[in-house]
Amino acid sequence: MSIGIGIIGAGVMGADHARTVASAVGGAHLAALSDADADRAARVAAETGARRCHADSMALIADPAVDAVLIASPDATHAAFVLACLNAGKPVLCEKPLAATLAEAEVIIAAEKALGRRLVQVGFMRRFDPAYAGMKARLDAGEIGPAVMLHAVHRNAAVPPWFTSEMVITNSAVHDIDVARFLLGQEIVAATVFAPPVPAGALRDRQFLVMETAGGQLATVELFVNAAYGYDVRAELVGERGTLTRAPRDAVALRQSGRESGAFALDWRGHFAAAYQRQLQAWVQSIRSAVPVGPSAWDGYAATAIATACVGGLARGERVAVDIGTRPALYD
Amino acid sequence: MSIGIGIIGAGVMGADHARTVASAVGGAHLAALSDADADRAARVAAETGARRCHADSMALIADPAVDAVLIASPDATHAAFVLACLNAGKPVLCEKPLAATLAEAEVIIAAEKALGRRLVQVGFMRRFDPAYAGMKARLDAGEIGPAVMLHAVHRNAAVPPWFTSEMVITNSAVHDIDVARFLLGQEIVAATVFAPPVPAGALRDRQFLVMETAGGQLATVELFVNAAYGYDVRAELVGERGTLTRAPRDAVALRQSGRESGAFALDWRGHFAAAYQRQLQAWVQSIRSAVPVGPSAWDGYAATAIATACVGGLARGERVAVDIGTRPALYD
Amino acid sequence: MSIGIGIIGAGVMGADHARTVASAVGGAHLAALSDADADRAARVAAETGARRCHADSMALIADPAVDAVLIASPDATHAAFVLACLNAGKPVLCEKPLAATLAEAEVIIAAEKALGRRLVQVGFMRRFDPAYAGMKARLDAGEIGPAVMLHAVHRNAAVPPWFTSEMVITNSAVHDIDVARFLLGQEIVAATVFAPPVPAGALRDRQFLVMETAGGQLATVELFVNAAYGYDVRAELVGERGTLTRAPRDAVALRQSGRESGAFALDWRGHFAAAYQRQLQAWVQSIRSAVPVGPSAWDGYAATAIATACVGGLARGERVAVDIGTRPALYD
Amino acid sequence: MSIGIGIIGAGVMGADHARTVASAVGGAHLAALSDADADRAARVAAETGARRCHADSMALIADPAVDAVLIASPDATHAAFVLACLNAGKPVLCEKPLAATLAEAEVIIAAEKALGRRLVQVGFMRRFDPAYAGMKARLDAGEIGPAVMLHAVHRNAAVPPWFTSEMVITNSAVHDIDVARFLLGQEIVAATVFAPPVPAGALRDRQFLVMETAGGQLATVELFVNAAYGYDVRAELVGERGTLTRAPRDAVALRQSGRESGAFALDWRGHFAAAYQRQLQAWVQSIRSAVPVGPSAWDGYAATAIATACVGGLARGERVAVDIGTRPALYD
Repeated sequence: MSIGIGIIGAGVMGADHARTVASAVGGAHLAALSDADADRAARVAAETGARRCHADSMALIADPAVDAVLIASPDATHAAFVLACLNAGKPVLCEKPLAATLAEAEVIIAAEKALGRRLVQVGFMRRFDPAYAGMKARLDAGEIGPAVMLHAVHRNAAVPPWFTSEMVITNSAVHDIDVARFLLGQEIVAATVFAPPVPAGALRDRQFLVMETAGGQLATVELFVNAAYGYDVRAELVGERGTLTRAPRDAVALRQSGRESGAFALDWRGHFAAAYQRQLQAWVQSIRSAVPVGPSAWDGYAATAIATACVGGLARGERVAVDIGTRPALYD
Repeated sequence: MSIGIGIIGAGVMGADHARTVASAVGGAHLAALSDADADRAARVAAETGARRCHADSMALIADPAVDAVLIASPDATHAAFVLACLNAGKPVLCEKPLAATLAEAEVIIAAEKALGRRLVQVGFMRRFDPAYAGMKARLDAGEIGPAVMLHAVHRNAAVPPWFTSEMVITNSAVHDIDVARFLLGQEIVAATVFAPPVPAGALRDRQFLVMETAGGQLATVELFVNAAYGYDVRAELVGERGTLTRAPRDAVALRQSGRESGAFALDWRGHFAAAYQRQLQAWVQSIRSAVPVGPSAWDGYAATAIATACVGGLARGERVAVDIGTRPALYD
Repeated sequence: MSIGIGIIGAGVMGADHARTVASAVGGAHLAALSDADADRAARVAAETGARRCHADSMALIADPAVDAVLIASPDATHAAFVLACLNAGKPVLCEKPLAATLAEAEVIIAAEKALGRRLVQVGFMRRFDPAYAGMKARLDAGEIGPAVMLHAVHRNAAVPPWFTSEMVITNSAVHDIDVARFLLGQEIVAATVFAPPVPAGALRDRQFLVMETAGGQLATVELFVNAAYGYDVRAELVGERGTLTRAPRDAVALRQSGRESGAFALDWRGHFAAAYQRQLQAWVQSIRSAVPVGPSAWDGYAATAIATACVGGLARGERVAVDIGTRPALYD
Repeated sequence: MSIGIGIIGAGVMGADHARTVASAVGGAHLAALSDADADRAARVAAETGARRCHADSMALIADPAVDAVLIASPDATHAAFVLACLNAGKPVLCEKPLAATLAEAEVIIAAEKALGRRLVQVGFMRRFDPAYAGMKARLDAGEIGPAVMLHAVHRNAAVPPWFTSEMVITNSAVHDIDVARFLLGQEIVAATVFAPPVPAGALRDRQFLVMETAGGQLATVELFVNAAYGYDVRAELVGERGTLTRAPRDAVALRQSGRESGAFALDWRGHFAAAYQRQLQAWVQSIRSAVPVGPSAWDGYAATAIATACVGGLARGERVAVDIGTRPALYD
């Protein structure tokens, strides 16, 4: 009766997911873990009580004790594992991105379409964040009238040295692209990327993205991946009659040394802890009920397609049209 | 390996706990439910997947499939069930109050002391609330210096017609009494209750409580159980060099009709949802590790003793001394 | 046509008032200054453009160029100067306290009553603070129903070495006493002062005051005059259907070094700058229109009477009754 | 000794300025008023105590009792009156815009340059707003490192029927353009305007402006002039190490009917009341000291030049370059 979860990847994200499954999700248990680094997998398994370790992730997918698969391995491996899950007929929650390339994402869409039922959920966990989910619910309840604009801020305290200008879009902004589609409810048809000139080879760590939807809505995203002061993600959704703002605040206010202050989370793990827990809880429930929830493979494909267009816009320094094609009926 | 939880009581609180165990706590499953109303127990069991229903709660405690017991039955039954759990050697999480009378609470303390190990956790869930827990952690980290005062506000939108003036203290303030002991770290030695005069027989729905600790700290609590506008619980902890404030805020800010606003939860269930989830998660973990966490039977006894003294102070309209006796070494 | 203001006292407060008159109040000019320290008066006059300096403050009151008098000299001198203004028939704004003793305050009331018209305004500037004034206006507009409780916090970063335990009440709390009378609209009939025991001779720098009004309302005041972190004055007014809170916030929010923060003012001058400006502006307007505004001599007397009772309560450690007598019709 | 102010225009803005001079600015008096509507001028004069009314505004400028002129007449008249003030050698505070056309603004610059001293201040009152001024001061103090981005929101509840799509820029955004120059400290060199397509002839009431400075900073402005819910102006200044946010909040928080809320001002007059008062106070002080403060004629010209370029960008739907020329040494 309890769902056996198999997790591919025992790095930072995989280990976090393993801990959440073990301690904060009901109706499921950690059936297996796999990682290219067998020691790492063993350590995480010991900590979280995972029943089995696989050296080969394909073996994990095939393991009969594994009812559903969570993919948290390097991006380049995502598509192959997702396709294997589809082949095995097992529900799969894939950390974003769905695939490392647009072509691979298209293959997944085709495969799931051929299968005729949705097994893939993409790890855009923000849709389960209490604030983003609340904004959507209250928009749908008519509190602010139809949505007309969205303004997002996405700041990281710092990024590692190997972070590239393109990753600012494909790794960071891709979350805001999904949020824009989720909240605005219309497809994105054009994008313009503003990024201050930098010395050759330097990271363009500040970018400003303006997206336009089919219905004339605007979604803007400030990206600043070396913002120094903390991890800070917020957004204001503007409707015809009002606005809804996600403005996270420390649960405790400190008054000390002449200041009243609240602390920022260090990174997305602390900031979105509730979103990750709710994402897994909803996923397990969707497996039990066989009713898909959350972002689909199509949403994963769309975000990748739009991010890819934006990368082109960054390179060319001008407005680019975006056309993600027609959504298959499976995803209606 | 998974802990089998048995829940006594399938009313509002019991059903909520059952849902939380079923969906948001790992490492445990809902083994059994009992309720004096068998239909109600059956309905909640069906919804939450509880494996078994008992008509007799003592049978639930004795059930070998039940590893640990959660008591959410009427207050008058708490003590007998807690004692049965101690007899059975099973860990028990008892909704507050630990017992309906001080005498019963003393019997429990004596029984657990005789047993020589702690099996009882009392459901003062606020200690697991991210904000209260954060205040404690940051106080302990020295952010504000030694604690000198605590100011709490406890407002309910409304209370049912059968609510009494004494229950304002024993049912509502008892949580703030526990928080005061938790955050101030010293025992309460005196209390004064201010309550505006009301017509004979009317509910004294506004009370103001001033407690003094052995070390000269003050803890004040405003109680207003017909505050109309919403459920509102907050607190400021004052240290020698700063303050820490729990000031809950809606995760989403709405700008509409000339106002920027956030919504209040309707009652404690919405307001303290995270606290209830964390309480259960910590309890399950404490069972697995056999290391007690959270408020002990002694904390439950102490809160009852102080609340009882306050009720006397309310009746007499003057400062009352409080003496809860010496804490047994088991609870150090 | 321009009102000639004479200011008695060129210390910190007097100089501040002089600057405000000179730069931020219309329809008036700084006609004269006086101070026991002639050099100090001359310096402030030079800075603010005061037309004349008097060595003798009684001469300033008599000066025909002075249409109205602002008293900012040491407390012990207030009563004599106020009485001289009444004799001279000149409007007077007296910094709090109206008088250093209750007996002197009674003499002033008697004198103004004999005169038959109100010339005295007392410098309880908080009544002109946008937030306190806004709370009063919105209470009167019915936004929260009838007022039932007021909770005030009054913290100073530090006080000078000569500050006494009694001054915590007479110097600091007296403002909150006036605010309580202003917002609750009923007279205070009892008070209890809680203050942790301290070593003999030490300042009781933390006090907690609970006042009761004739109608059963409660007004609480936390006083902490060595709160270290900043000057912090706030209050929540509780009505039967809602609450109104004065929660001052820095006009600018800083996000830096892992925190979002706002700064506190260092002391009351920065914190209440707008209140001081509006107080003077309203006073000048009231002189021009001959319609008194703001706190009257009676309000000054009442605050002194209540503070005096509280000082007794602090000494005796028990609830004290307060009876300020019947308000003369002049002050209706 | 008191500065005699003459105000041209007794409409909404002129009357407000007249009230401020009369009641909340020291060291000056209202010497004269003029308005094409003599009755209107007379009414405002009676209310505010202006000593004289002129039917002809040129006569007001020439009036020897008028030491300095405040222009609050229709935009089309600004340039002529400013030039007359320069001819008369009288300091002038001109409501924005400095001139209705860029050509006129250039004439004013030439005239003031020929005069060789600065007499003109432009009414970009936001520079005197406590929050914007505080952001600038704290930026200059190094609190957030060098400025790299500015994000502004400018929302009106509604605009009158005669408001045009161009006025969204020239009338509303022009304030944000000045703020961007003030806070970023570099000149704007390019601008892109995003505005959703609307039916022919309809007002483009939502526009999004992206400006780039010579040093690669970005300044974005959301304009929404029919935002319905209230007047809402805010901004976040992003530095390399932190951010400073102007986030105005009601001085009083209301808890009622399930919500905690603060009210918005209805329009800019309430929202920027403190800024208007401080602007006039600083202007009077600058006249007395003969040291110019605040936005100069050059700032007025620059804002007009940038707004004009943006209007072109709105029409063409593409990024436009902006070149305002070299700042004359007079304005260094």
